[in-house]
Amino acid sequence: MNVVTRSEHDLLGDRDVPVDAYWGVHTLRATENFPITGTPISAYPHLIDALAAVKEAAALANQELGLLEATKADAIAAACREIRAGKLHDQFVVDVIQGGAGTSTNMNANEVVANRALELLGHQKGQYEYLHPNEDVNLGQSTNDVYPTAVKVATVFAVRGLLKAMSVLQDSFARKAVEFRDVLKMGRTQLQDAVPMTLGQEFSAYAVMIDEDRSRLAEAVELIHEINLGATAIGTGLNAPAGYAESARRHLADITGLQLVTAANLVEATQDCGAFVQMSGVLKRIAVKLSKSCNDLRLLSSGPRAGLGEINLPPVQAGSSIMPGKVNPVIPEVVNQVAFEVIGNDVAITMAAEAGQLQLNAFEPIILHSLSESITHLRAACLTLAERCVDGITANTEALRRTVENSIGLVTALNPHIGYTAATDIAKEALVSGRGVAELVLEKGLLPAETLADLLRPEVVAGSGQALA
Amino acid sequence: MNVVTRSEHDLLGDRDVPVDAYWGVHTLRATENFPITGTPISAYPHLIDALAAVKEAAALANQELGLLEATKADAIAAACREIRAGKLHDQFVVDVIQGGAGTSTNMNANEVVANRALELLGHQKGQYEYLHPNEDVNLGQSTNDVYPTAVKVATVFAVRGLLKAMSVLQDSFARKAVEFRDVLKMGRTQLQDAVPMTLGQEFSAYAVMIDEDRSRLAEAVELIHEINLGATAIGTGLNAPAGYAESARRHLADITGLQLVTAANLVEATQDCGAFVQMSGVLKRIAVKLSKSCNDLRLLSSGPRAGLGEINLPPVQAGSSIMPGKVNPVIPEVVNQVAFEVIGNDVAITMAAEAGQLQLNAFEPIILHSLSESITHLRAACLTLAERCVDGITANTEALRRTVENSIGLVTALNPHIGYTAATDIAKEALVSGRGVAELVLEKGLLPAETLADLLRPEVVAGSGQALA
Amino acid sequence: MNVVTRSEHDLLGDRDVPVDAYWGVHTLRATENFPITGTPISAYPHLIDALAAVKEAAALANQELGLLEATKADAIAAACREIRAGKLHDQFVVDVIQGGAGTSTNMNANEVVANRALELLGHQKGQYEYLHPNEDVNLGQSTNDVYPTAVKVATVFAVRGLLKAMSVLQDSFARKAVEFRDVLKMGRTQLQDAVPMTLGQEFSAYAVMIDEDRSRLAEAVELIHEINLGATAIGTGLNAPAGYAESARRHLADITGLQLVTAANLVEATQDCGAFVQMSGVLKRIAVKLSKSCNDLRLLSSGPRAGLGEINLPPVQAGSSIMPGKVNPVIPEVVNQVAFEVIGNDVAITMAAEAGQLQLNAFEPIILHSLSESITHLRAACLTLAERCVDGITANTEALRRTVENSIGLVTALNPHIGYTAATDIAKEALVSGRGVAELVLEKGLLPAETLADLLRPEVVAGSGQALA
Amino acid sequence: MNVVTRSEHDLLGDRDVPVDAYWGVHTLRATENFPITGTPISAYPHLIDALAAVKEAAALANQELGLLEATKADAIAAACREIRAGKLHDQFVVDVIQGGAGTSTNMNANEVVANRALELLGHQKGQYEYLHPNEDVNLGQSTNDVYPTAVKVATVFAVRGLLKAMSVLQDSFARKAVEFRDVLKMGRTQLQDAVPMTLGQEFSAYAVMIDEDRSRLAEAVELIHEINLGATAIGTGLNAPAGYAESARRHLADITGLQLVTAANLVEATQDCGAFVQMSGVLKRIAVKLSKSCNDLRLLSSGPRAGLGEINLPPVQAGSSIMPGKVNPVIPEVVNQVAFEVIGNDVAITMAAEAGQLQLNAFEPIILHSLSESITHLRAACLTLAERCVDGITANTEALRRTVENSIGLVTALNPHIGYTAATDIAKEALVSGRGVAELVLEKGLLPAETLADLLRPEVVAGSGQALA
Repeated sequence: MNVVTRSEHDLLGDRDVPVDAYWGVHTLRATENFPITGTPISAYPHLIDALAAVKEAAALANQELGLLEATKADAIAAACREIRAGKLHDQFVVDVIQGGAGTSTNMNANEVVANRALELLGHQKGQYEYLHPNEDVNLGQSTNDVYPTAVKVATVFAVRGLLKAMSVLQDSFARKAVEFRDVLKMGRTQLQDAVPMTLGQEFSAYAVMIDEDRSRLAEAVELIHEINLGATAIGTGLNAPAGYAESARRHLADITGLQLVTAANLVEATQDCGAFVQMSGVLKRIAVKLSKSCNDLRLLSSGPRAGLGEINLPPVQAGSSIMPGKVNPVIPEVVNQVAFEVIGNDVAITMAAEAGQLQLNAFEPIILHSLSESITHLRAACLTLAERCVDGITANTEALRRTVENSIGLVTALNPHIGYTAATDIAKEALVSGRGVAELVLEKGLLPAETLADLLRPEVVAGSGQALA
Repeated sequence: MNVVTRSEHDLLGDRDVPVDAYWGVHTLRATENFPITGTPISAYPHLIDALAAVKEAAALANQELGLLEATKADAIAAACREIRAGKLHDQFVVDVIQGGAGTSTNMNANEVVANRALELLGHQKGQYEYLHPNEDVNLGQSTNDVYPTAVKVATVFAVRGLLKAMSVLQDSFARKAVEFRDVLKMGRTQLQDAVPMTLGQEFSAYAVMIDEDRSRLAEAVELIHEINLGATAIGTGLNAPAGYAESARRHLADITGLQLVTAANLVEATQDCGAFVQMSGVLKRIAVKLSKSCNDLRLLSSGPRAGLGEINLPPVQAGSSIMPGKVNPVIPEVVNQVAFEVIGNDVAITMAAEAGQLQLNAFEPIILHSLSESITHLRAACLTLAERCVDGITANTEALRRTVENSIGLVTALNPHIGYTAATDIAKEALVSGRGVAELVLEKGLLPAETLADLLRPEVVAGSGQALA
Repeated sequence: MNVVTRSEHDLLGDRDVPVDAYWGVHTLRATENFPITGTPISAYPHLIDALAAVKEAAALANQELGLLEATKADAIAAACREIRAGKLHDQFVVDVIQGGAGTSTNMNANEVVANRALELLGHQKGQYEYLHPNEDVNLGQSTNDVYPTAVKVATVFAVRGLLKAMSVLQDSFARKAVEFRDVLKMGRTQLQDAVPMTLGQEFSAYAVMIDEDRSRLAEAVELIHEINLGATAIGTGLNAPAGYAESARRHLADITGLQLVTAANLVEATQDCGAFVQMSGVLKRIAVKLSKSCNDLRLLSSGPRAGLGEINLPPVQAGSSIMPGKVNPVIPEVVNQVAFEVIGNDVAITMAAEAGQLQLNAFEPIILHSLSESITHLRAACLTLAERCVDGITANTEALRRTVENSIGLVTALNPHIGYTAATDIAKEALVSGRGVAELVLEKGLLPAETLADLLRPEVVAGSGQALA
Repeated sequence: MNVVTRSEHDLLGDRDVPVDAYWGVHTLRATENFPITGTPISAYPHLIDALAAVKEAAALANQELGLLEATKADAIAAACREIRAGKLHDQFVVDVIQGGAGTSTNMNANEVVANRALELLGHQKGQYEYLHPNEDVNLGQSTNDVYPTAVKVATVFAVRGLLKAMSVLQDSFARKAVEFRDVLKMGRTQLQDAVPMTLGQEFSAYAVMIDEDRSRLAEAVELIHEINLGATAIGTGLNAPAGYAESARRHLADITGLQLVTAANLVEATQDCGAFVQMSGVLKRIAVKLSKSCNDLRLLSSGPRAGLGEINLPPVQAGSSIMPGKVNPVIPEVVNQVAFEVIGNDVAITMAAEAGQLQLNAFEPIILHSLSESITHLRAACLTLAERCVDGITANTEALRRTVENSIGLVTALNPHIGYTAATDIAKEALVSGRGVAELVLEKGLLPAETLADLLRPEVVAGSGQALA
């Protein structure tokens, strides 16, 4: 098959590029240099949108400062708006894991924007004498400020999706907390029967955990709003005129609707990955809690006969080809796995951040990849868990109440009412005979049935550890 | 758009499936349940091939034991061979990260194989009364033995690719070791000038590291040849007749060409992920070494003026849009990032393995995903590093020789020849004056020029730490 | 040797305890059960002090609520104050890594406090009929609220020490930033020469990093002020009377001087380790930055002849027995290692937090141990780095200036002043001839010497990326 | 207090050392430089012994080659033997985490050996003119070959202790496997009831896991037998005469009884930490399995009333001050925590290994520390688990049998005997009615009681997944 091509030139020489490609020679070389994951950056739409926003903001700032003529700036801005509208994403073809600190991603963006802008100006792709990827689209910029800025904008947008998904899951847990507020059960510490509580309290705790995690995530994403646009190569702002950083920031804030701020020390900001490490640490925290909650759901729904059997997860698919009727906790299980992935990603991000040297961290592409994966997978996991699991959970109320009445741990609760000696005797007899504490207490007339019932009212059992605010 | 459908049934009820889909209702539900990564298992071709091999082996074993009539077995085997020939891979659509310990992957395979076999028998897709995904294709099997067995076969094939890529890289380093055998340079410890060595020795060390890592990888992959096919649900072999495990293993060995062995204790083998943890640990070791070598390459090629400037990496793309002529070590940088990813994946695999409970580890899908990613990315990284970087490295021989002659560390080497006192005096004078040790030794007549030259011959400098066997 | 003993009793039977031991039978069994690390909890003085503070606060609350007679409460409080004054720490003998969610640590505290209080009341150790470790000292408490509360108080105190040490280090870097404000040097990206900057900017970046990290740490420690005292076993407050939680919190706040708050949902707070995971994540962030800074210091001081040789670290010990005069960057190296330890500890803490089940996390002892180690080692690392390294760093100012004048990267800065074409020509000639850019520019009369000097003034080079606020 | 001192000298000047200290000026400076953990290397007795063995081997080799007179060599060897006999360990005072690649540890050893040898020769400590720490004790050596060699020898000895402890634990599990070979129970996959098995099979799996881990550990420790003694500074063997490496290796093998081999490529061996990473990876594998087994033990012993209640762990201490009679699984819990620590240590070791640069890894001290901690804590955990938990485990045989008879999963086993249709009907009726499958099968006359009993014989249930070879 003959592909019609155009010739482009860079410092290594001439190369043929498919004539209808919006990308150019720099992108071509990058695709050859980094055949690593097979996943192009187009798979990260937030990043593509963010790159387009940065390029547009830079063009507007350059125009404002008189460095770029209006015709060119308008064309660049129009091309960027098209990209943000979802067009041309398939032209972002470089591998997400790449050397060069994101240079290839930036070059890919410069070339696509330039070629689309050329078309809008009535030229053909590749006629860079009219509008140049580097000299016009990248004017006053460096990969070292463009790429981190775009990664930050993309991360903010991705995190918004995660925050919403967490709210959905929190609401699901909270609704179950209300639904189960009167369901008595045994609380457990170290997997051993402890003292009574309500199932509502158990689910309320899951809701509260997510609520706290959302607060932490919101704090962490604030730090991501600090950008280094205008820093150029190493933070000294070389080749960016006075006023450029502020103008570009203002335009980028307008375009994205984000309250972006320029870092006070651009040299530090250009080499620093602290905000990403912090973000990943909070994602890890979220993963830890989600995993713990899912471990609990799987444990509480174990059975149906030889397990705890406290709750029932809604069946969403057949569990086994060999064991008819078996239904497995597949939704919590997939969430556990996302959690493990996020925790692993945190180590990768940590190592990448630690490996930065002198004025730049060359390893931001893996940080982008890992962060993005963690955020989007956590988002999917939260929604799936809410909609395909938590919302359909039911409680085995009667069985749960019986475990409370039969538990030795009930003695602890009756202690103040029947006295320590009687309580100890009851506990011993219950252990030896295998009978229930409630049953024995009533049989021996230690408490009237109404009093016992009163002590087992859910609101009494729930005590000061309120389930529901 | 109207999609023509057929109706299929499972324990949750009836569902419409596109009439031309080879997958069925179980696969449909799984795609709805696990919208996590967007990456279907078809992206793991070794896994699809391995599943087909397992299904074929099971069918042949069932036929041999008289449990499956020849017509069905032949059709199943033919369908499996088509899959292994690369057909129908696009029908493997469930998300790679899934709950259910791989049940959905197994079900997807059962359905695709059954529907293709039905066609080969002259029936239509979905006419399971003639050949059933569970009762025929999955006969005598359970996800709990099929999935781990397929993952192991897939891993063995993937590792072979990595071993070959490591050989390629090792050869590249070894060729450079020969090429640079006469290039004198200063060795460094703790980044401080130490004593002389040859550049050939430096590159030889990288070759030897990879050679050792290949040995470790070959050992680790041996452990992966132990399978639990025939274990069925928990290792007791329930529902698999006597002789099945051995027959299935034999057929699978024939089909794959692998020296597979059946685990001595199938209960243990069914719950155990030790071989995967070991494999990942070795991949981590490889990543550590690769990363260290790439750190060195980046350091040795730092410059061109303000760095060590000992070697030159071949330029493979422009390094900067803002700094003309800048060329960056982008290939080693991408390898570093793969290494960080592999190290992070090891943590995810470790957590997944630790989270197994009782008779099964439900988290093998993330283990498959992470292992596969680590192996294939390392393979790509090795090839890229060899072909796009190491093969083109050149040495700045003259400058390197001058650093040796100027180094204070040379005194250590001359110590036995000029005496400790003279050596110390020379060192002091060199430090104060900034002059070179060689120059001073000659000037003071402490050694004849020929003797000094002799002591600086590469083979003398290389000493007992031989670079080249 | 005959040890004089007293006999004590628990549910497993009678045991002899050394007569002069303040600990009792529960502690004895714990020392036998957990012979793991050999490190007793007395090695964590903040924890011992915090336990004593909690026990005192509980006694005062119990007295206030009329549950504990004043004589007993006074004796308990007096014993606790002695402990906080540094006495009896050697009686805290259980292994820091222990099963039981901290029960043995709590029991050890109960026994030591009780026996010292007994002495203060004129009784002998072991005469628990007068004052009982469980019934009096532990009244209204459970390990499950006492231990996490004490760990939090201890962590707050430890973090204060770290914050101070970070300030010291920040100040050291900031002083060097001022000292080196006029030292020109080449900035580097991806280890390749980039554009000029000042050494002051480089050190300023390190100071700013620590400043930001201090802010993050201060935020994280705020979360640690939320306690669950009063939750008792699982958060329902069973056996703790109304008003107890608030009274105990108030007393604990008074005793410690900390603005403690009681968690809104005690069930959640009792099982949750999120604040510890967050804290560890921030410690990891600090470790990442410290390690990166130390990597830079080692790189910049590499040499003396065959390295970058930009700065000199003060020699603090001989570097080699075999290479006379060799001085190594041992202080940054030890800081790197602490960073690796902290990053590893974060994984241990993460796994421990994830492993919590239902109403309690049984693995808080390893969390305490790892957190405490990370905090105290980071503190030592910061102080050592400041005092034994950064404070004594000197710059090789002249050599640094020469690298700027000789660099190709200087062209980028001269670009706006001599034009792109002339700049490119100069760059090419410099590359081919090996000569310096500044030299060539002057030779060709492209710029007057004064203009060139002006462009190389530090304040011009530093540009908009201000080093010093 | 006046400490009587002697004066010592190094390149930084004169310092006073306590007159009775066997260590000298280099050690003094190191203790001042590294106030990090407070843990001296004397806490690592295997390391001290290994250092002494290396120093003795080097002295004997030097004597053999005529480089060291017999009197000195004899005195050095005698001093080393005293150290290996357990004397003078308290003189090894430098902090275990130290910069300098172990130089301070080596210097500490040189000084202690020299001063003790001086005494044996009738001189006073500090009279280095008669026998010098560097020139005599360290003759022909460098920290860069001494330290890694000593760490390897120490690791081999520590691993032997771990291998023995693992055998003890394996035997404990294996004995329980025999004891429980006739105890029927329900196997579980994904925490859901699956099919029947025996409790003996469950414990057999734990024994087999440890057995396999022991094999892996034995393989990994083989790699540790490769040493680089004779490499001196960077592997070129500079300053070590021909024959030294082989002679020193032979003497070290004789002294330690280990089959040590000298690395084929000493340059590679001197910078490589692969064997340590491999060792740590295997320790992580062991930790993963131990943790999984302990998770299971805690789960199976959950209760007593509201848990699985399958087995009983022996009570080793009171579980709660607030809940009388509560006994917790404290021994498995402490093992879990050791596992988390080991997994965290693996990350620290991985980062330290990756951070090595050029001809040396400067971060071996943290590798030594982390490896040593992992090995010794795992050893303690295995012994504690065996002796204080596994050996005392009892089974609730009757309750376990009832869960089998009542389980729906039993249907899977009866399928071949009563037909699929009848099996499905029974399963449905059991689910609806809550009655047991065995009961229904008998009631409906689907199987004679003897046949059912036969099918539930343990040896039938155990099937092909044999518990006991």
